[in-house]
Amino acid sequence: MSSNDYKNLYNDYLNKVENKLDLIVKEKQPQSLYAPFHYLITGGGKRIRPVLTMICAGAVGGNPDDALDCGVAIELLHNFTLVHDDIMDRSPLRRNRQTVHEKWNEASAILTGDVMVGFAYNLLPTSNLHPRSNEIYKAFTRGLIEVCEGQAYDMDFNEKKDVTLDDYLNMIDKKTAKLLETSAMIGGYIGKGSDEVINSLLTYANCLGIAFQVQDDLLDLTAEQAELGKRIGQDLFEGKKTFLIIKALEKATKDEDKNLLKEFINNNGLKDENHLPQMVDLFTRLSVFEDAISFADSYFEKAKNSIANMKENLNTQMLHWLIESLNKRKK
Amino acid sequence: MSSNDYKNLYNDYLNKVENKLDLIVKEKQPQSLYAPFHYLITGGGKRIRPVLTMICAGAVGGNPDDALDCGVAIELLHNFTLVHDDIMDRSPLRRNRQTVHEKWNEASAILTGDVMVGFAYNLLPTSNLHPRSNEIYKAFTRGLIEVCEGQAYDMDFNEKKDVTLDDYLNMIDKKTAKLLETSAMIGGYIGKGSDEVINSLLTYANCLGIAFQVQDDLLDLTAEQAELGKRIGQDLFEGKKTFLIIKALEKATKDEDKNLLKEFINNNGLKDENHLPQMVDLFTRLSVFEDAISFADSYFEKAKNSIANMKENLNTQMLHWLIESLNKRKK
Repeated sequence: MSSNDYKNLYNDYLNKVENKLDLIVKEKQPQSLYAPFHYLITGGGKRIRPVLTMICAGAVGGNPDDALDCGVAIELLHNFTLVHDDIMDRSPLRRNRQTVHEKWNEASAILTGDVMVGFAYNLLPTSNLHPRSNEIYKAFTRGLIEVCEGQAYDMDFNEKKDVTLDDYLNMIDKKTAKLLETSAMIGGYIGKGSDEVINSLLTYANCLGIAFQVQDDLLDLTAEQAELGKRIGQDLFEGKKTFLIIKALEKATKDEDKNLLKEFINNNGLKDENHLPQMVDLFTRLSVFEDAISFADSYFEKAKNSIANMKENLNTQMLHWLIESLNKRKK
Repeated sequence: MSSNDYKNLYNDYLNKVENKLDLIVKEKQPQSLYAPFHYLITGGGKRIRPVLTMICAGAVGGNPDDALDCGVAIELLHNFTLVHDDIMDRSPLRRNRQTVHEKWNEASAILTGDVMVGFAYNLLPTSNLHPRSNEIYKAFTRGLIEVCEGQAYDMDFNEKKDVTLDDYLNMIDKKTAKLLETSAMIGGYIGKGSDEVINSLLTYANCLGIAFQVQDDLLDLTAEQAELGKRIGQDLFEGKKTFLIIKALEKATKDEDKNLLKEFINNNGLKDENHLPQMVDLFTRLSVFEDAISFADSYFEKAKNSIANMKENLNTQMLHWLIESLNKRKK
């Protein structure tokens, strides 16, 4: 199969997800609750979590369509975290559209996220529908808890002056990788995979998530970000302790460089636009861009190795294609 | 048994709930997430939802202790709604203590509520532990969704100028009665009651919830409120469309009375302290206090009748005692 064929299959899965999302609260009352709900979940995106859930169900030999509902449940859980994170971060835009707390108000944004969790749980199969429903519920709940812990660690980082690479990895493990792991596990359960193969998928998803986040930190400084409605260097203006910042802190030896980083930490972000080229120059000189690329690459490689022994089918091929296409992404 | 014996049994159940709540996130990391969590759930209170869950398990012939975990799950769900409602309502105090968003910040209060839902689900029994786990999960999730809908309707009422008694009853049905119903149902499932007897408990809890809320509207104007850290007439200053206001709107005929109520509606609450005695005088003349009392009484009566045919045991007696003691409460 060609890369285009895989892309088409991805889009087939994605369309099923979009259709399901569009109908989930259609015409439900009260509108004050369900209009922002519908708006939030129909804002597009890669839908990587639900599609991964479907792919994994297929990869272990099951029917990907059987995993649609669980995939959508994880996408709802993801959107629940987004709408609440956007309040916490005071973000006005997401994917070039107003955030819910901006378009409606904060109370609506809190409540919309809250009720979404209920709709998510309602999509999981009960034990009369699936023999591994207990594991599915438990995996889902663990995902919910850890993604909240990840967000808490992320917020702690704003106050913390000495974030290490280990702290960073622990945080993105929970905040970014966890829901991908949840997708892979639940997809594997739905497809009735063995514990061994589900474990491989879990490692795959974890590595993909870590690589994806480090890449995201890199992409913060590339022009294509603007297409998502973000300004270049947004993370740095917000004072986020990204992979780049942490690596630079590790590697800087010159006083001048140390001072610039110290200022970044004490000021909780870049002071103004003029400081961006200085920071980029510092990153270049310390080759932290290369560090990020090779770090991400090593995780993409681990992801690949983790599924190398799986019995090949169209969906395991999709898992390999997914690594390639995420590795090449520009936004 | 004397009233004191019932009270002691209630306190036995309550102590088990308190002990469980105290341990649930003890020493968990990150503290930025779990310190507010622990603070929130150890603030005391009647704990009527978990205790009712235990009583109902006993009332259908099961062991009340078996329902402790589910009861605590419902109490966590209740606290999740409280911590988020307090942000939406900008309440500085709850039970005479600072609210979480005041003591920490809003982001912590959002996240603390969010993660609490996960801990709640983790306390529900999986299908290998209980034959009715599917019904328990479904009832719990329905409770979560409807309590959010109730809060949305309640917020809608702030904007709405013409709230009817039906609107009000629909709102309190979801916002207040629903989680009591959830307690009764899940308690009944845990105790392995028949569908018929669980249905009786459901009606009981619904009626108790409605009566309880109408009583709450009444108690807003009694001196004992101050002991809970609320000011007398708090609901009226906040512009809440309580049972009293809705009844007064229905019954007022004099222009003077209509104008006072119109002013209340347009102004979204009482303008100042001076208007409180005027409103109380209006309520007295229109006998809406009596209306509220007889409305609550009729629901307490319905609650009593709904369980009249249940096979008597210590816990069904507790259900009757609960009606009496809620009916007599002063705060």
